[in-house]
Amino acid sequence: MNQNSMSRRNFLIALAEAGGASALYGAMVTMGLMATPTAYAGPPELPAGSGKGKKIVIIGAGLAGLVAAYELSKAGYHCTILEARGRCGGRSKTVRAGDKIHESDSVQICKFDSGKEMYCNLGPARFPTDHSALIGYCQELGVELQILNNHNPFAYLHDDSAFAGKPLQIREVSTNSRGFISELLAKAISKNVLDKELSKDDKEKMRMLLKAYGDLNDVFLYKGSDRSGYAKGGRVNLGIKKAPIDLSELLKSDFWHYKMNWGEILGQGPMMLQPVGGMDMIIKGFEKKVSHLVTKNAVVKKIINTTKGVTVVYHEKKEEKTIHGDFCINTIPIPVLKGIETDFSAEFNRAMHAVPYLNYLKIGFQAKRRFWEKDCHIYGGISWTNQDITQIWYPSSGFNSQKGIVVGAYIFDNAISEKIGKLTPTQRLALAKKQGQKIHPTYSDDVEHGVSCAWHKVPYSLGAMTIEAEHLIPILEKPQGHTYMAGADISYLGHWQEGAVLSSHHTIERIHQRVQKE
Amino acid sequence: MNQNSMSRRNFLIALAEAGGASALYGAMVTMGLMATPTAYAGPPELPAGSGKGKKIVIIGAGLAGLVAAYELSKAGYHCTILEARGRCGGRSKTVRAGDKIHESDSVQICKFDSGKEMYCNLGPARFPTDHSALIGYCQELGVELQILNNHNPFAYLHDDSAFAGKPLQIREVSTNSRGFISELLAKAISKNVLDKELSKDDKEKMRMLLKAYGDLNDVFLYKGSDRSGYAKGGRVNLGIKKAPIDLSELLKSDFWHYKMNWGEILGQGPMMLQPVGGMDMIIKGFEKKVSHLVTKNAVVKKIINTTKGVTVVYHEKKEEKTIHGDFCINTIPIPVLKGIETDFSAEFNRAMHAVPYLNYLKIGFQAKRRFWEKDCHIYGGISWTNQDITQIWYPSSGFNSQKGIVVGAYIFDNAISEKIGKLTPTQRLALAKKQGQKIHPTYSDDVEHGVSCAWHKVPYSLGAMTIEAEHLIPILEKPQGHTYMAGADISYLGHWQEGAVLSSHHTIERIHQRVQKE
Ligand SMILES: Cc1cc2nc3c(=O)[nH]c(=O)nc-3n(C[C@H](O)[C@H](O)[C@H](O)COP(=O)(O)OP(=O)(O)OC[C@H]3O[C@@H](n4cnc5c(N)ncnc54)[C@H](O)[C@@H]3O)c2cc1C
Ligand SMILES: Cc1cc2nc3c(=O)[nH]c(=O)nc-3n(C[C@H](O)[C@H](O)[C@H](O)COP(=O)(O)OP(=O)(O)OC[C@H]3O[C@@H](n4cnc5c(N)ncnc54)[C@H](O)[C@@H]3O)c2cc1C
Repeated sequence: MNQNSMSRRNFLIALAEAGGASALYGAMVTMGLMATPTAYAGPPELPAGSGKGKKIVIIGAGLAGLVAAYELSKAGYHCTILEARGRCGGRSKTVRAGDKIHESDSVQICKFDSGKEMYCNLGPARFPTDHSALIGYCQELGVELQILNNHNPFAYLHDDSAFAGKPLQIREVSTNSRGFISELLAKAISKNVLDKELSKDDKEKMRMLLKAYGDLNDVFLYKGSDRSGYAKGGRVNLGIKKAPIDLSELLKSDFWHYKMNWGEILGQGPMMLQPVGGMDMIIKGFEKKVSHLVTKNAVVKKIINTTKGVTVVYHEKKEEKTIHGDFCINTIPIPVLKGIETDFSAEFNRAMHAVPYLNYLKIGFQAKRRFWEKDCHIYGGISWTNQDITQIWYPSSGFNSQKGIVVGAYIFDNAISEKIGKLTPTQRLALAKKQGQKIHPTYSDDVEHGVSCAWHKVPYSLGAMTIEAEHLIPILEKPQGHTYMAGADISYLGHWQEGAVLSSHHTIERIHQRVQKE
Repeated sequence: MNQNSMSRRNFLIALAEAGGASALYGAMVTMGLMATPTAYAGPPELPAGSGKGKKIVIIGAGLAGLVAAYELSKAGYHCTILEARGRCGGRSKTVRAGDKIHESDSVQICKFDSGKEMYCNLGPARFPTDHSALIGYCQELGVELQILNNHNPFAYLHDDSAFAGKPLQIREVSTNSRGFISELLAKAISKNVLDKELSKDDKEKMRMLLKAYGDLNDVFLYKGSDRSGYAKGGRVNLGIKKAPIDLSELLKSDFWHYKMNWGEILGQGPMMLQPVGGMDMIIKGFEKKVSHLVTKNAVVKKIINTTKGVTVVYHEKKEEKTIHGDFCINTIPIPVLKGIETDFSAEFNRAMHAVPYLNYLKIGFQAKRRFWEKDCHIYGGISWTNQDITQIWYPSSGFNSQKGIVVGAYIFDNAISEKIGKLTPTQRLALAKKQGQKIHPTYSDDVEHGVSCAWHKVPYSLGAMTIEAEHLIPILEKPQGHTYMAGADISYLGHWQEGAVLSSHHTIERIHQRVQKE
């Protein structure tokens, strides 16, 4: 330890003695000595009464609209939410026994058994632990949270074009990848070809790191690892290691494109959270606070600014109605907004039409028995396949009970979603059963009562979410007269409920500031 | 697809049509085309009445003893469990408000608040999802399970001798490691020094794999990755990547010895499970079935075989008593058994004395506020440090509530356990607070009411578990006359409750076979 760090240490000790832990913490953060978690400051603080009775018309009772109504009402604004659907929540849709799924050309009725765990989140299903604004509301609204297992090494990777189509456990693929990479790099280091990159001392340490990282043997070769699980034994007798998989087959597969790295991706790594009993528990929490402000089945057709405010025209049970507000918060999803008459700027319209949008498609099944737990030791997590269904998701709760709900397809790819979206609901389920069978051989016998949702065909959503539209946000979030766009679609977390909440906060803060000035 | 695989495929399709999914499954497993999960066949099937009223003396009401009594009773054996302590469960000890912790020279009383989540598992705390025998009992006994987060990338790694003692998030360390390793190997491959190991085609694919694996840029360099989390932004504005950490510092640290690989280790990878409300819920489940068979405070002193059975001498409230059985199942942990008078073979005694044993030490604290969730977005998981406390474990349930229990030290190393075990309970807590402070700067203000347990000082345990004793099991499990050793200590899963269960099954199966023959 050098002079400098000694005196720094003495300083910190003195500070701790004088000022206690918090003073020490502040100083250490300043000095860069501590991890600096980004604490969440809470929703915008709008003093009670500061709303001065201003009238706010909020379009959409999705998460963004509900948050806005909740916070603004507390501050004395008069809020009305116009919601096109007969329910609140928008993209946050959880289905249970008897619920309906509307697409442009079909209506499905969910036939699941009833029960606390018998739900399927057709929209959002998980969030990472640093989505503090959302988590803050869960706490405030009494929504109980539990762990969602988003990456389970016991689940499978499957690619028809590698390993003869045999599914491999994720842990086998990741262990072998680490092994191959580590062995190859250890060899290269020994050949002294990386001497520019690594000092002599670091070379040796790096080889030791690789040995630990890849579970190499004493001569730095990868000869299989028990991290893949045993080939046999290990319970009532000695465990026998699995042989390494074939590297060329691994390279042939699509496993490494992103699937085996899933748990590493920002926002997708463990641990993630979910509300107990379904994602819409959050919506239900807000409804307890603001449902009296919501007009359902109110389909907005026109948003026109006036000199002093804004006029919104909507249809309620085929009747045209008009409402005036001092401000309007518009959370209509971008694909739907394109079809609404507004007086927004040409710049806004150009940006709106430039936003790329994703078509997600999800399928859910009731399982007669929890075969993934019983047969495969899988408790939560995701299996991946190169087939259209892309994923099978297992529930992270209700363990050891008889039945459960699995996600039988979760399709990200726009073209595949469109293709499968063209099938009838019945055809989709038949296809998902057949494809699931390649991962779980008893699948089609075990699942029943499927539901599906092609989000691009769902009225008032017409898609799932934006992608790579961050550069357009500064334009889209500019107020159009007295109208403010809000919602996940114009947030930097556009794939997440947290984005809807933060965008809502950002919007009400700006309206509030304007009201205080006026 | 070649001829061969086409005809194989046709065969499988025909089979599926003829025999349904299960026939297909059987065939595919046989042909090596399917993943083959090792299904658990359940506990030994002992027909009702097959016990013929034989008397079994079981020593120890830990998990192994309880399982034996439960299964044997069902089959018509007459079981008596002699348990030295005033409670069942042995090493499965969960403490709550008012519970006592006995060590050879101290008694602690747990001062936690009461509440469903206000418990600390001083012994077992987690199990992997393939511990099917244990999970089977949880199902049978109605013990509700939930996910235990055992590896949380948001938790910290801390080493006084690297990064100026600043804790790093695990995800930062693992992302950077992947980045460094991938960049170095991509460079080596480009230098054509691994041409013997990789075909031309595989070389190119391997570079692409490394790009995805390490999140390298377009010229295959690692320049930081958002997988580490952002340095700033990413919520209401664009996220800015963190710079890469210093490779030499990483190599200096002890992170890579095993801590950053923790989630990869067999049996420790995600996902793991825990019973809702504390590990001893499993014990309580068994107690509902067999507590009437348990004599508590019965300290066995002598086990002597007779020609037809076995005689066990024990002390109950200072009174010497004797009990005879047709068989004895002895689950006394090895360090305790060394002090018991028996007539076991010299071979057994030699093996018993050769078994290496571990001294684990755990400390638990009540936290006044869940600072790890609020300040650091940590929901479950483990932070690691090179200090004596080794770990801080965060609870995987009770999220968003006010208080909670953290494990403030979990020490694996025998020498450190012994050193800390020599401190008084009060001294241990002071030390753990001070060390925890280096990871969480408000730690010592936030935690209170600590408890500790140095297992090697706990009567009737005298240690935590065996290590690398597998080669001795064949000797130790040989019957000594009518006495059979059972329990985790003589199982191939010696660190796990599953081992205790399986060893118990193995033992009752052998006794049962002998009874059927006699
Ligand atoms: C398949 C899928 C998976 C997802 N997964 C996750 C996840 O795992 N985690 C996560 O955090 N997020 C996820 N998301 C994103 C999340 O659902 C959204 O970010 C969030 O729900 C958006 O809320 P919002 O209020 O901005 O928009 P919406 O929920 O779309 O609300 C807009 C509202 O406006 C209404 N509306 C539309 N047109 C009109 C009109 N003309 N007149 C009146 N009202 C109208 C709609 O009916 C709707 O209620 C997912 C989304 C989808 C689709
Ligand atoms: C700190 C620690 C952490 C652990 N972590 C995990 C984990 O996370 N997951 C997991 O699955 N496992 C874990 N284990 C291992 C697990 O606790 C054991 O495998 C299991 O509890 C052993 O059960 P058993 O019945 O074999 O032995 P024990 O539970 O030790 O039972 C032996 C019984 O014999 C009694 N006894 C002793 N001497 C006498 C005598 N002379 N007369 C009468 N009775 C006597 C004892 O009081 C005790 O009740 C952990 C253990 C420890 C100590």
